[in-house]
Amino acid sequence: MTIKAYGANSATDPLHSLEIARRAPGENDVQIEIAYCGLCHSDIHQVRSEWAGTHYPCVPGHEIVGHVSDIGPKVSSFQVGDLVGVGCIVDSCRHCGDCAEGLENYCDHMVGTYNFPTLDSPGHTLGGYSQQIVVDERYVLRIRHPEDQLAAVAPLLCAGITTYSPLRHWKVGPGHKVGIVGIGGLGHMGIKLAHAMGAHVVAFTTSESKRNAAKTLGANEVVVSRNPDEMAAHAKSFDFILNTVAAPHDLDVYLTQLKRNGTMTLVGAPASPHPSPEVFNLIFKRRALAGSMIGGIPETQEMLDFCAEHGIVSDIEMIRADEINEAYERMLKGDVKYRFVMDTRSLN
Amino acid sequence: MTIKAYGANSATDPLHSLEIARRAPGENDVQIEIAYCGLCHSDIHQVRSEWAGTHYPCVPGHEIVGHVSDIGPKVSSFQVGDLVGVGCIVDSCRHCGDCAEGLENYCDHMVGTYNFPTLDSPGHTLGGYSQQIVVDERYVLRIRHPEDQLAAVAPLLCAGITTYSPLRHWKVGPGHKVGIVGIGGLGHMGIKLAHAMGAHVVAFTTSESKRNAAKTLGANEVVVSRNPDEMAAHAKSFDFILNTVAAPHDLDVYLTQLKRNGTMTLVGAPASPHPSPEVFNLIFKRRALAGSMIGGIPETQEMLDFCAEHGIVSDIEMIRADEINEAYERMLKGDVKYRFVMDTRSLN
Repeated sequence: MTIKAYGANSATDPLHSLEIARRAPGENDVQIEIAYCGLCHSDIHQVRSEWAGTHYPCVPGHEIVGHVSDIGPKVSSFQVGDLVGVGCIVDSCRHCGDCAEGLENYCDHMVGTYNFPTLDSPGHTLGGYSQQIVVDERYVLRIRHPEDQLAAVAPLLCAGITTYSPLRHWKVGPGHKVGIVGIGGLGHMGIKLAHAMGAHVVAFTTSESKRNAAKTLGANEVVVSRNPDEMAAHAKSFDFILNTVAAPHDLDVYLTQLKRNGTMTLVGAPASPHPSPEVFNLIFKRRALAGSMIGGIPETQEMLDFCAEHGIVSDIEMIRADEINEAYERMLKGDVKYRFVMDTRSLN
Repeated sequence: MTIKAYGANSATDPLHSLEIARRAPGENDVQIEIAYCGLCHSDIHQVRSEWAGTHYPCVPGHEIVGHVSDIGPKVSSFQVGDLVGVGCIVDSCRHCGDCAEGLENYCDHMVGTYNFPTLDSPGHTLGGYSQQIVVDERYVLRIRHPEDQLAAVAPLLCAGITTYSPLRHWKVGPGHKVGIVGIGGLGHMGIKLAHAMGAHVVAFTTSESKRNAAKTLGANEVVVSRNPDEMAAHAKSFDFILNTVAAPHDLDVYLTQLKRNGTMTLVGAPASPHPSPEVFNLIFKRRALAGSMIGGIPETQEMLDFCAEHGIVSDIEMIRADEINEAYERMLKGDVKYRFVMDTRSLN
């Protein structure tokens, strides 16, 4: 089946309208009519081949929400018309230890929603900047939010799970003091989620202008990281810091905010390395610097249900497909509150 | 009381014989006749002022063993003649959360055994390259090894606890695959301790010549880290890696050996930073890079008792005080198996 999509044919090609093929639903497949797709910073890196090995045509998009339009004969969990989502993962090996634990995100054979090898034409996966997608039901998520929130749910499929998973893994909850570094697409979800988990949330920002916005999102306190007095007042006091900033920056500024046994977890992957952190800052308080990558399928469902229960969605700005290139430029300047979501009706 | 010691009067001064004063034992003090003192790499950094702020005269030494020669009237745990040790810590604030948990090593006001402020003359602490030391009983450790092992117990007070503490904190035991990077003063203790804890121990070395020695120490396997095939065979397989190498080196080589959720803990502090680790290597398997610094007093006692029970001591080479300068040069070349210990009788 041929459908409309938005993508690029080379690293320097602006995104434009394309036609792509999708397979007919197999036995275990769910065919999804995509309603909205979020724009993630990694979409820009990938479509411009700033990371190794982008395959073209490249159709980005892994924050996908819509309705089930068809199902294969063996699909047991979904029916036509259901509200569903697809995140960053559309397949994995299904038998390794990671898959067995529902941590398909750490499977060595994880198949990402775009730019990963597939038997389908054209030989690599094509993402959610498109009218429709076909995915094995194992990797399809149920959405329990009200339908009128559907567009704002889309970013939960990447920005939401990327922040939810480490907050859960490092057991953030009541009695914890948690820092969120960066108030962008990921960071604004981190603030909302950590707040809903009951932690005392401190947002770190380089910009005084974001102070009120961060409080509105749920931060108990906001620290402007360029203000040494504010930083000193919080030194050695954090149980956990979630660092969402992908641009290379001084990690020591935040590591020294951790108390003994504290961990700072990075979820942003910089194109060039951060300055090397000072080993003494790890040794002196038995601190850790960690990383975390999206989340597994059961955990993503848990996150969606948690968000539905707590009334959490992303703050979004809706765009048409023909505004994607402009939106990318604004994302690179940090000029979005806090996530662009494309209405796929505009692909027509 | 004036006693003999070995130390330096400036950063460029070779160590030589000195006379220093020790206080008379206070109410809670234990006076110790030092029998042996180990030589630690940090002694070299400190006496040469390679870290900030060395005070002179500098008398290094924090791997101290000996016999109690006098006690204050309120001392309850020790008697004259007892076999005891003093490690890196001789005081701390005693009321913070770290001290309350017996983690005086992380107390912001920890007083190190040498080069830390004290009310005693000359205003900073003087270490174990000396005939005698006076320490509050709270910071004195009991030695339960046979007396003929006393010299080989000395390095447990720093090299032993520095490796024991992270192995315990990260819960190393049966069923764990543990890597030890570096087979020197710290690393050789790490191998012995991890082996005694029941882990499957893999020693990493850059030198083929250390293969047999590492097995003798208790390593189940030895990997020459410069051999890509050997490294590939162990990729993504370690629960925990204890990295004892202080010289700046490529951390990614070892981070990629960790399985999901694995931690590599650094216990060596380089004079200049390691090359910055690749963030992707932390993110992809939710790995962590951590640090750990010596250990608390209760944990040090636990380590000494564990070693006595398992017959564990350091492999040592005994020297006289007037061989310390030469020993430092050999330590800088890694030419010692595996720890120098000075016999304090040679101070006379």
